[in-house]
Amino acid sequence: MAYGFNGKFLRVDLSSSKISVEERRESFYRKYFGGRCVIAYYLLRELKPGIDPLSPENILIFAPGVITGAPIAGSGRSSVGAKSPLTGAYGEAEAGGFFGAELKRAGFDGIIIKGKAKHPVYLWVHDGEAEIRDARHLWGLDTGESQEIIRKELGDKLIRTAQIGKAGENMVRFACVIHDLRDAAGRVGMGAVMGSKNLKAIAVRGHRSVEVADPEKLRELSKWLLDNLDKTGTLHQFGTGAMMTSHVLSGNLPTRNFRDGEFPNPEGISAQRIAETVRIGMEGCFACPIRCKKVVKFEEPWSVDPIYGGPEYETLAALGSNCGIDDLKAICKAHELCQRYSLDTISTGATIAFAMECYENGLITKEDTGGIDLTFGNAEAMLKMIELIAMREGIGDVLAEGVKRAAEKIGKGAEKYAVHVKGEEVPMHDPRLKRGLSLGYAVFPTGADHNNNLHDTDVRSFPALGIFEEVPLEDLGPRKVRLFVYFTNWRVISNSLLMCNFLPWVTNPRQLTEIVRAVTGWDTSAFELYKLGERSMNLTRAFNVREGFTPKDDRLPPRFFKPQTSGPLSKTAVDPEKLEKAKELYYRMMGWNPDTGAPTMEKLAELDILWVADEVKTNVREDLD
Amino acid sequence: MAYGFNGKFLRVDLSSSKISVEERRESFYRKYFGGRCVIAYYLLRELKPGIDPLSPENILIFAPGVITGAPIAGSGRSSVGAKSPLTGAYGEAEAGGFFGAELKRAGFDGIIIKGKAKHPVYLWVHDGEAEIRDARHLWGLDTGESQEIIRKELGDKLIRTAQIGKAGENMVRFACVIHDLRDAAGRVGMGAVMGSKNLKAIAVRGHRSVEVADPEKLRELSKWLLDNLDKTGTLHQFGTGAMMTSHVLSGNLPTRNFRDGEFPNPEGISAQRIAETVRIGMEGCFACPIRCKKVVKFEEPWSVDPIYGGPEYETLAALGSNCGIDDLKAICKAHELCQRYSLDTISTGATIAFAMECYENGLITKEDTGGIDLTFGNAEAMLKMIELIAMREGIGDVLAEGVKRAAEKIGKGAEKYAVHVKGEEVPMHDPRLKRGLSLGYAVFPTGADHNNNLHDTDVRSFPALGIFEEVPLEDLGPRKVRLFVYFTNWRVISNSLLMCNFLPWVTNPRQLTEIVRAVTGWDTSAFELYKLGERSMNLTRAFNVREGFTPKDDRLPPRFFKPQTSGPLSKTAVDPEKLEKAKELYYRMMGWNPDTGAPTMEKLAELDILWVADEVKTNVREDLD
Repeated sequence: MAYGFNGKFLRVDLSSSKISVEERRESFYRKYFGGRCVIAYYLLRELKPGIDPLSPENILIFAPGVITGAPIAGSGRSSVGAKSPLTGAYGEAEAGGFFGAELKRAGFDGIIIKGKAKHPVYLWVHDGEAEIRDARHLWGLDTGESQEIIRKELGDKLIRTAQIGKAGENMVRFACVIHDLRDAAGRVGMGAVMGSKNLKAIAVRGHRSVEVADPEKLRELSKWLLDNLDKTGTLHQFGTGAMMTSHVLSGNLPTRNFRDGEFPNPEGISAQRIAETVRIGMEGCFACPIRCKKVVKFEEPWSVDPIYGGPEYETLAALGSNCGIDDLKAICKAHELCQRYSLDTISTGATIAFAMECYENGLITKEDTGGIDLTFGNAEAMLKMIELIAMREGIGDVLAEGVKRAAEKIGKGAEKYAVHVKGEEVPMHDPRLKRGLSLGYAVFPTGADHNNNLHDTDVRSFPALGIFEEVPLEDLGPRKVRLFVYFTNWRVISNSLLMCNFLPWVTNPRQLTEIVRAVTGWDTSAFELYKLGERSMNLTRAFNVREGFTPKDDRLPPRFFKPQTSGPLSKTAVDPEKLEKAKELYYRMMGWNPDTGAPTMEKLAELDILWVADEVKTNVREDLD
Repeated sequence: MAYGFNGKFLRVDLSSSKISVEERRESFYRKYFGGRCVIAYYLLRELKPGIDPLSPENILIFAPGVITGAPIAGSGRSSVGAKSPLTGAYGEAEAGGFFGAELKRAGFDGIIIKGKAKHPVYLWVHDGEAEIRDARHLWGLDTGESQEIIRKELGDKLIRTAQIGKAGENMVRFACVIHDLRDAAGRVGMGAVMGSKNLKAIAVRGHRSVEVADPEKLRELSKWLLDNLDKTGTLHQFGTGAMMTSHVLSGNLPTRNFRDGEFPNPEGISAQRIAETVRIGMEGCFACPIRCKKVVKFEEPWSVDPIYGGPEYETLAALGSNCGIDDLKAICKAHELCQRYSLDTISTGATIAFAMECYENGLITKEDTGGIDLTFGNAEAMLKMIELIAMREGIGDVLAEGVKRAAEKIGKGAEKYAVHVKGEEVPMHDPRLKRGLSLGYAVFPTGADHNNNLHDTDVRSFPALGIFEEVPLEDLGPRKVRLFVYFTNWRVISNSLLMCNFLPWVTNPRQLTEIVRAVTGWDTSAFELYKLGERSMNLTRAFNVREGFTPKDDRLPPRFFKPQTSGPLSKTAVDPEKLEKAKELYYRMMGWNPDTGAPTMEKLAELDILWVADEVKTNVREDLD
C-alpha cells in the first residue's frame, strides 16, 4: 500500500497529441517528494539546455507533493514549473487552493507537458484518465468565462482549473497560471509557457481519496494546529496586508519603485481597510481552517467580480504603494484584472512602477504611452497599463517583456530603474531593511524570491535546528549566513512538500516531520526533510549552472546599494562588499564551488544525486565517481 | 529552571591543590551538550599544543552529558578525556555504570583536572563540594581494595569511584580508568594520565536528583523501550559475545593477531558458554532494564572475584581468539586482572598477540620473555604477560608502551605485526569484512575505534536519515561514504549525550530526539542532534590538526591490505586505492580540506564554532571572519 502518492505521472505531448502514464516507485517519491524537486528532476533529465523558454521545446510540469491532498491544513498547494521566459533560469511557482489535491484525487502525482498544440487546447484529467480537448472557443476569454464554459461543457461544477487569460496567451513574460480564478502560481512567467504551448487550461476532477498511513496522528496534528491558531489570528481575521503601517515605519513598504521611504496613507491600502469596506467574505484552501483569502466586491467606480477573490499584501504593495497609489478600489480592480488576464501582480506592479519612474525622468514620454500621464499615484494610468500589457498593445508590448528587457529596449539608462534579479522583478520587501533578503534575492534560483527567503525582521533564530542565540538584524556575517542557510534550506522544503508557509509548521520542524510521517508512513526525521531542502536547492542550482548562470548573475539591482530618498531607511543601504562576502560564504556552506557557484561532487554525492554531476561538468572529478 | 545540567564544572589544580567551581550558562550546554564535545572544547581552549601527555601540563576531564542521570535507560554513561599518551591525539573513552549519574547528582556537569599532585591523592566530590585527599595508603593497591578503603573511610557504601590500579600508576600507555570496578573507560590511556597526575581515584556521591522537563514523556519513552526490547533479547540474556560462531563464519573474529581466519572452538569462548559455566548473574547500568553485564566467579584453577564483573565481546576476542586462546577461564581471569590493574583489555590482548607473533617469528626470544614460551594459544603465558605489563617488568615494560612504540623498540621489522592506527591497537572487528570499518579506523580522531564506526554487516541503510536503499557490504564508493558519514555523525552523538549505543535509540532518531527534549525542555530536532555529532567530529579533528596530524596519519596498518591466511577472508583484503578515494571523499563531505584534513572555515562557521579557526590556521581565511 502506497501512502501519499499514486505512483503515476501523466505525460502529454501536445505536438503529437499523445498521452501516456509513467509509473514511479516509492524510492523516487522518498528522494524527490514532489513539487520543486520533481520539476527540477525532470527538467535536468529531459530539457535540452539553451532552448528558448517560449519554444515548443520547453517542458511544463504541474506537480503537487506527497502530502498534497491529505486531510491536514496547508496541504492544498501545487507547483508549476518550466524554464522561465522571464529569467532563462529554473522557473517554478506555487499556488494554494484545491488544484493539487484534486490532481492527486484524480490519480496522478504530476503532469509533464511537452511540445505545442496546433491550435488552442485544454487538458481534461479525471480519475486516472486524460484527454486533450479543443479550446479554440476559449482562446481570448478571461479566466472566469473560460472556467465557466469548461465546467459547463464537462458537466461538473466541482472541476478545478489551472488556466491562462489573455496575458498568458500573448506570452507576457510574467504571465501567471490562475487556479480556480483565485490562486495564482504567480512568478517567473509559467503562464507564458502555457500560452506558448497553445494550452489554455487544465481541468481536473478526481474521486479517489488520498490514503494516509496514520489518520489518527493527522487528526492529532490538526488539533495541535487549532490549539496554536491564536498566533495566526491576524491571518485568520484579515489575511495578508494587515501590517501596512508597521511596514512604513520600518521602511519595508516598497514605495514608488523602491525609491522612497514615505507613504502617507498606509492604512488606506491595508487588509483592515479592505475588511471595513469592500470585503464580502474570506475563503480558504483545501483542508485549511485559517481561511486567509479575501473576497472583495463592489460596483463603483469599477465593477469588481468576487469570483476573483481579493488582493494579498504583495498585490496591495506592488500595485499600490510601489506605484505611489493609495486608491484601494483601484488596487482591487487591478488585482481582478490580473486574475482575469493571468498576470503576476508583483511583476505587473513592479513593471508599471518602473515605467512610471522612467516617465517621470523623461525616458518614456506621453507619445510612448499613447497620451497616458504615467506618473506615480495615477490609478487610472495604472489600470490602463495592465490592459496594455495583457494585450501587448503600445508601450504595453515593451513592458510585457519585464523590466530587464524593457529597460534594454528603452535604453537611455533606464536600467537604473529596473529593480530585478536575473530578470525577475523584486517582490515587496526591502533588502535595505532585511539583510537576509539581500542575500536571498541575489542567490535564489528563480530570481528575487520572497517566499523562501529570510525575513530577518521576524526570524532571528531557529532553536529547533540548533540556532538558539539571536542574530542581529543588521548582521551579514557568518552567523547570519548560517541562519540564512538553515532557515532557507528548511523553508524550501515547502516547495517540494507543497506545505503552506503560512502554517506554523515552517518553524516547527517537529510537527512538519510528524505530518510527513503520518501521511506517508515513512520513518522520516527533521534531518531527512532538511536534506530534501538541500536537494531542492542543489537541483535548481545545477539547472541554472547548466544554463550558463554564474556567480555574477547572483547580484542585486543597484538601487539597493543606495538608501531610500526619505524615511527610516534614508541612511541605510546594502553594503556590496559585505554582500559579496556573505555570498561566497553561502556558496561554501552550501557545498558549492565559490568560483562557479556549482554544486561540488561531494555535495551531490552526499545528497544521493550524483547523476547531476554529468549536468554540471564544472567541478566534477571523474576519478571519484 | 535548568533541566539536564547543573551549570557547574569542578576545576581542580593538583599542583596547587586549588579547587574552584566554574559556572556555565544554558547556551554552553545546548551547543556542546557534554562528554566528547565538552572535553574537546576545554582541550582546544586550554591545553598547550605539543605537550607530553604524561606531563603535568596535560588536562584530564571527566564529563557526563545533559541527559546523564535522567531516569531513562542508557543514560548512565560518562566520559574521560585528555591528550592521549598512546596516540598523542585527542583522547577520550567512555564507561557505563553509575559514575556519571552520581556526578550529576553531586551537582557538577564535569571535572577539569590540571597539574600533578606532589604525592598520590584522590578526589572526593560530594553534593556541590570537593576535596583533595591523601591517597598514599592506596597507591599500589588493586582497584577493588582501593575502593573498599575509600568507601570505608568516607563512611558511605554507595560512593561511586573512577580509579586506577597498578597499570595506571605505572603509566602503561593503554591503562584505563575503572569505574566501580566493572566499567572501564577503556581506550587510549586515560588511566595513564591519571597516574601521571598522582591521582589514584575520584570518589563521588550526590543526593540531588536530576530534574527533567517532561517526566511523563520520559516514562512514555521508557515504555516504548520495554515494548521494543524483544529485539535486544540476546543482549539481555547473554550480554555481548553471543555471536562468536557467526563471527568466525564471516571472518570477523580476529584470530592470532588478525593473521588467521580460522578459530576451532568459538563457542568455547562465547557468552553462552559463560552463562552455562562461570556466570553467577547479570548486572546493569543506571536506569537500564537490559542488564547486559556478566558477573563471573570461580575458584579453580585461578580464583576470580565477582566484584570485577565479567568479560565483554572485545575482551573475549582480544585476550582469547586474537591470542589463539580458547581457555574460557583463563580469559575470565585475564579480564579480572585488567580490572584490578586498570588495563584496557583490547589493547592488552592486542599487544600480547603482537608479542606472540613477534615471538613465533623470532623477533622476541625466550631470553626477552624471561623464559616464558610466548606462543599463540598459551594461556598461562598470556596471564603472565598481563602482570608484567601492569608492573612494567621485563618485556612488559616494552609492551606497556603499546604495539607502535614496542615495535619501534624491538625493531627487526616488528612493525609489520603492529596492528594499530595512530598508535591505538585495533579492536576486535575486521575491516577486511566490514568496508565501513576500514574507513572508520583510518579517520577517527582517537585512532582505531569500533564504537562509533559503521559495522556495515549490520547497517546497510538509515531510513530515518533518508538513506532508504541498501548499500552493498563490499561497496566503498560514494554511496558507502554517504552512509558512513550520516551513520557515524549520528552515532558520535552518543559521545556527547553519553547515551548507550546498545539502546535502540541509535537507529531511532525520533526517540533519541524525544529523550533530549523531554530531559532538557529544548525544542530540539534530529537535525540539531546531527549537527552536535558534526560539531564533535570537527572539534576533535581540529585538536588533532593542531597537534600536527595530517591525512597521512589517517591510514590502516598494512595487515589489512592482505587477506587472512585462511578461512572466509583468505581471498579478500582492503583495497588501498579505494580506501584513499573514500577517505578523500569523506573529508570533502565532512567539510574538511582534503589536502590537510582540517575543517574548513565554512564548516566551522556553519557549526557556530568559528573560534576553532584560530586553532587550525590552515585553510582559515581572515577576510571572511
